[in-house]
Amino acid sequence: MPNLKNDLLLRAARREPTERTPVWMMRQAGRYLPEYRAVRAKADFLTLCKTPELAAEVTIQPVDLVGVDAAIIFSDILVIPEAMGMELLVEEGKGGPRFPTPLRSTADIEKLDAAAAPERLQYVYDALSTTKKQLDGRVPLIGFAGAPWTLASYAVEGGGSKNFETVKGMLYDAPEALHALLGKLADATAEYLVLQTRAGADIVQIFDTWAGILSKDAFLEFSLPYMMRIIEHVKANSDVPVIMFAKGANTDFPELAASGADVLGLDWTVDIGEVRDAVGTQVALQGNMDPVALYSSPESIRAEVRRILEYFGNNPGHIFNLGHGILPTVPPAHAKAMIDAVKEISVEIRAEEQE
Amino acid sequence: MPNLKNDLLLRAARREPTERTPVWMMRQAGRYLPEYRAVRAKADFLTLCKTPELAAEVTIQPVDLVGVDAAIIFSDILVIPEAMGMELLVEEGKGGPRFPTPLRSTADIEKLDAAAAPERLQYVYDALSTTKKQLDGRVPLIGFAGAPWTLASYAVEGGGSKNFETVKGMLYDAPEALHALLGKLADATAEYLVLQTRAGADIVQIFDTWAGILSKDAFLEFSLPYMMRIIEHVKANSDVPVIMFAKGANTDFPELAASGADVLGLDWTVDIGEVRDAVGTQVALQGNMDPVALYSSPESIRAEVRRILEYFGNNPGHIFNLGHGILPTVPPAHAKAMIDAVKEISVEIRAEEQE
Repeated sequence: MPNLKNDLLLRAARREPTERTPVWMMRQAGRYLPEYRAVRAKADFLTLCKTPELAAEVTIQPVDLVGVDAAIIFSDILVIPEAMGMELLVEEGKGGPRFPTPLRSTADIEKLDAAAAPERLQYVYDALSTTKKQLDGRVPLIGFAGAPWTLASYAVEGGGSKNFETVKGMLYDAPEALHALLGKLADATAEYLVLQTRAGADIVQIFDTWAGILSKDAFLEFSLPYMMRIIEHVKANSDVPVIMFAKGANTDFPELAASGADVLGLDWTVDIGEVRDAVGTQVALQGNMDPVALYSSPESIRAEVRRILEYFGNNPGHIFNLGHGILPTVPPAHAKAMIDAVKEISVEIRAEEQE
Repeated sequence: MPNLKNDLLLRAARREPTERTPVWMMRQAGRYLPEYRAVRAKADFLTLCKTPELAAEVTIQPVDLVGVDAAIIFSDILVIPEAMGMELLVEEGKGGPRFPTPLRSTADIEKLDAAAAPERLQYVYDALSTTKKQLDGRVPLIGFAGAPWTLASYAVEGGGSKNFETVKGMLYDAPEALHALLGKLADATAEYLVLQTRAGADIVQIFDTWAGILSKDAFLEFSLPYMMRIIEHVKANSDVPVIMFAKGANTDFPELAASGADVLGLDWTVDIGEVRDAVGTQVALQGNMDPVALYSSPESIRAEVRRILEYFGNNPGHIFNLGHGILPTVPPAHAKAMIDAVKEISVEIRAEEQE
């Protein structure tokens, strides 16, 4: 493996000082880029995920085009339930991926094959090693997976949901069945992430997209322990840092900081300075600009970047990011304006403080 | 005005001791009740709002049918922008109310008539006085309005929105125009709520449904000050308590507690005991059961009620409620199970602590 020429992200994840703040964007390999859309014109979403050369191509695009400090492997969190035996459909213009046969009984859950799932995802490992080679050490490569709670929500609801009635019905009325499902998802995901690190991932992120729909008690019972089980397994079997993004779990930072994760992802609704005060140097923080702010003018974008960098202050352990994925209709020039502003202003802030 | 036979809600709002915890539900006069649907079969939504006898009938239904400790006047937050001159459409099965001509320029905002709006809402005051008479003092009557930020979001977007790109575009790129709009909405709403108290409202609630889509800074600049302006005007011109529900503003409780509101509404994602510890006796708290929990079994509902009551503890100042509106497909028997559980378990908790 080549040495990294830009390891800002990894140093920031370990709370080490950096010359400037590293920056990347969730969903940075995606539809806002015309170059991505050109590749997608040749292959549907799952074919793209499952064809290592194409996945590597779109993974590297934002490094070249907008100048991010990391590449994140192009994939989808739902490949884990698929590899455990569920049929997954991703159809254009039909409102997101879905499972046409969602889990509705204990028997459905028992049928899922957690042990076999990680080895069925060889195409992800191939995409990672191909990308790693092509990146040639320019920036770190991020692997990722969905959190068990978020995967369970999709697998039980069959797709996105407004109120998550079915999976919450299980939570309240059949908690043992839900725990059984979450345990299987955690075991498969833990090994999946370890295999991602062996294929070249320098750091991994766990996405708990639906953390914020739970009561605090339910989050602490049905989500966090399963992410912690994954983190423990990754830490025992690799030396990569782990980023945990529990979107919307905004009153739970003390518990999140004690989870074993190296970095906490923050959505845009919290004050990153206040969170930093709450968690101290226990973890690094990633975030947290409103993705919708990228529709505003470059001047407004720059002002938002400055605000967030100043709130975090001249301390080690900040990875700049959006508070959620970049939206598909954002102009690429606006994304670049954000990234350039992070690079410039974070250097200014470090210089000011040294005067 | 008749004296109240059940004033639990008002005493709890003032942090006075109560024999048991009062309970009501946001959207309690609504589609989950067959009796409501029977009235709606005769009149569309806005006709129902604007016909005092019908509005009074559905307002009182949940008092009779599920035993809530308060009636909330049947109306909609969007009557304020309508009264300021915007056309409002509420069509069946078309995804919520909408403004076919949303605000898109400073000229659009200047045309809005804030001064005339309160007097144009006589049908709301008539509905309140009719309801008050028919309630005959059985329970308090709640008036309400939308928060300026939430009303501005609807008026600028033209309806509900996934990402609120247009109103956030104004927030970032034309903040003065947004402040002008928010000021007009606040002035009209403040006087509207005072007139509601004169027509018989015993307490009023401000709903900031979209507080949670803002960054903390944006909430403190574009939402909270306008709610505070309203509270100040209501307090100066009436003696009713004010409930403020800023849904999703879950890291801002110190600021919310200092707003002048008597009661803070909480969504279901926060631990009501932790919030109480944070705000002390400065304000009462309202909430905070997950509305989706009402799809679970009566036994699970009872367990959730007990959990929340125990977290709040045997202290004055709790109004039990859902953390958001009751969903239209909840069985009424489940709503009643929650209400009965609050009444019984809150008495038990008070007795236990006295032993």
